[in-house]
Amino acid sequence: MTNSAMDRFYSVIPAGGIGSRLWPLSRADAPKFLHDLTGSGQTILRDTWDRLAPLAGDQRIMVVTGRAHRAAVEKQLPGLADHNVVLESEPRDSTAAIGLAAAILQRRQSDVIIGSFAADHVIHNETLFRQAVRQAVHAADAGYICLVGIKPSEPAIGFGYIQTADAVEIPGAPSALSVNCFVEKPDLKTAQGYLASGDYLWNASMFISRADVLLEEIGRSEPAMLAGLLELAAAWDDPATRGPAVDHIWPALKKIAIDYTVAEPAATRGRLVVVPGHFDWDDVGDFASLAKLNSGGRASDLAILGSDARVLSDASSGIVVSQTKRVISLIGVRDIVVVDTPDALLVTTSENAQRVKSVVDALRLSGSSDVL
Amino acid sequence: MTNSAMDRFYSVIPAGGIGSRLWPLSRADAPKFLHDLTGSGQTILRDTWDRLAPLAGDQRIMVVTGRAHRAAVEKQLPGLADHNVVLESEPRDSTAAIGLAAAILQRRQSDVIIGSFAADHVIHNETLFRQAVRQAVHAADAGYICLVGIKPSEPAIGFGYIQTADAVEIPGAPSALSVNCFVEKPDLKTAQGYLASGDYLWNASMFISRADVLLEEIGRSEPAMLAGLLELAAAWDDPATRGPAVDHIWPALKKIAIDYTVAEPAATRGRLVVVPGHFDWDDVGDFASLAKLNSGGRASDLAILGSDARVLSDASSGIVVSQTKRVISLIGVRDIVVVDTPDALLVTTSENAQRVKSVVDALRLSGSSDVL
Repeated sequence: MTNSAMDRFYSVIPAGGIGSRLWPLSRADAPKFLHDLTGSGQTILRDTWDRLAPLAGDQRIMVVTGRAHRAAVEKQLPGLADHNVVLESEPRDSTAAIGLAAAILQRRQSDVIIGSFAADHVIHNETLFRQAVRQAVHAADAGYICLVGIKPSEPAIGFGYIQTADAVEIPGAPSALSVNCFVEKPDLKTAQGYLASGDYLWNASMFISRADVLLEEIGRSEPAMLAGLLELAAAWDDPATRGPAVDHIWPALKKIAIDYTVAEPAATRGRLVVVPGHFDWDDVGDFASLAKLNSGGRASDLAILGSDARVLSDASSGIVVSQTKRVISLIGVRDIVVVDTPDALLVTTSENAQRVKSVVDALRLSGSSDVL
Repeated sequence: MTNSAMDRFYSVIPAGGIGSRLWPLSRADAPKFLHDLTGSGQTILRDTWDRLAPLAGDQRIMVVTGRAHRAAVEKQLPGLADHNVVLESEPRDSTAAIGLAAAILQRRQSDVIIGSFAADHVIHNETLFRQAVRQAVHAADAGYICLVGIKPSEPAIGFGYIQTADAVEIPGAPSALSVNCFVEKPDLKTAQGYLASGDYLWNASMFISRADVLLEEIGRSEPAMLAGLLELAAAWDDPATRGPAVDHIWPALKKIAIDYTVAEPAATRGRLVVVPGHFDWDDVGDFASLAKLNSGGRASDLAILGSDARVLSDASSGIVVSQTKRVISLIGVRDIVVVDTPDALLVTTSENAQRVKSVVDALRLSGSSDVL
């Protein structure tokens, strides 16, 4: 009667965040997902697309992004169908973005299963990634909100963690585990304890669930949001009604992360499971992470990003990002971060990489938004 | 009969060295002396001119520089007379540069006293500087080669030192001391010993002597050079003969510093004295020195050079040189050196400032002379 679970699967890519901690590489008009951060020769948005396309095909990938990024996104993703582009008039956080995609897709296909995957994460071992997603799709088909969590390879302090509990028996999802709780970025000692216990996974914000289940969870937490999202979705596929509905409804939606409206409440009620993923994953949250990603795994190498880079250096660690054709010379600096762009230069160290966001804030306050 | 010593005085400014340790600020086509290194609003060549002009007037300052720098030098020094410009077809080190100036000036005025002062040093307390030079002119009039040495304010390891001995009685030069020996850049411990002894002065390469005495000393050390210099000087003031003489003689002159042809031999024979200078002096040899010079004497301040600089920094030490209009952001770096020019960027630390020259060498070897 119903199609098999995978046939009903649809990927959603929220492509929203700028990635302030990667300033001045990432900008309002050139956010993180529009950069080649791995030296692959294409943007990580395109990498994300290529990773998802084998799951259910090009025609079943929806992208939610800002109006300003439409042209760049469409250029990166020539296979992206018009009806799969959802443009935000302004950012309203992840519940609104993913919720709207779910509501639109659910109107088009009532039994659709959606999976939401950030546009700006980096994954290796794609086969293992898709195996985990397929398990998650089966868990979703069984009525669960399912996360794919990442088996930690080190005591990272930059990620949130998921504490897992007992196995849950779900056909097609043999690895599924129930979730005890979510924890924010821990300190190093706590993270080491997590790693040693074996009970924790990194939270990569990969949600897979039936669209109707997801909407029901949003409605339970935020009934007004659900009403707005459903009204918007009802107007979406008619060009005459979409514009007015967006103008009227979107700006009024609450800005709240889906972790709070869906994941945590669903976990509390036993409706959430997690499938551990054994692939390499990174959210490339800052330049220290970008350095690690581009040094071939060797902590003793200076990573260099930029096809025209002319770098002369005795540095044995850190990263240089070169967006100009200038000669960049480094002498006697360790764990250095140098980001050289036409209108802004950043010099910091791996240790201070998380503080880059504060510079963006300071520049905004000081009226230097021309370089943001 | 003879004019008073000061009336016979002539300043010579050898403006030759590029200042490789200040790359990429200093370049082959924009050497150190053509930069404002002190925030004074004018080049240090012009500062040098302004410091010397009160001694004997604008008409008695000669500049020896490379052909490539003629236009820039004349623009900086509108008071520089045509007959006081000596152009080198190629660099031949200080014996040739100062010796040629001496030979030309001595033909024009047989009893001339010359003083040679580098174009790219920084001096404060100009009155004390000129007082010391006036004493040196009297010592020169008495037949000595006279140096002005600098009373050390700290155990610097970047300068050469002069070990002084007994006072020498010379009318008009009450501070003159005989010289025991010259020593190259010492290590810190040795420099501390020098400072404690009170017998040592920094060698600032300020030579004052009668032109005929200087030429005699050159002839004693390097007879062939003296012959070449005299032949060149004889041809100099006739436009018909100068060109051929330069082409013929200049490239064949030995490349050797005047310290070896004049200062050390003259000291050995008791013909050299030194007048201690009690003014602030720096040869601005590297970016650490430039940082110190521009931090208002406070070691805890980040020095910023560049009129359009847009620097956002939490650094409490080091230096930023900004030649572009780019925003420069520094986070969590100490004693940092950032030199931002249109085609080259240098990032290093004060501690590594002396090693900048090695980058210039490496760039030359790697065929990147477009940025040298």
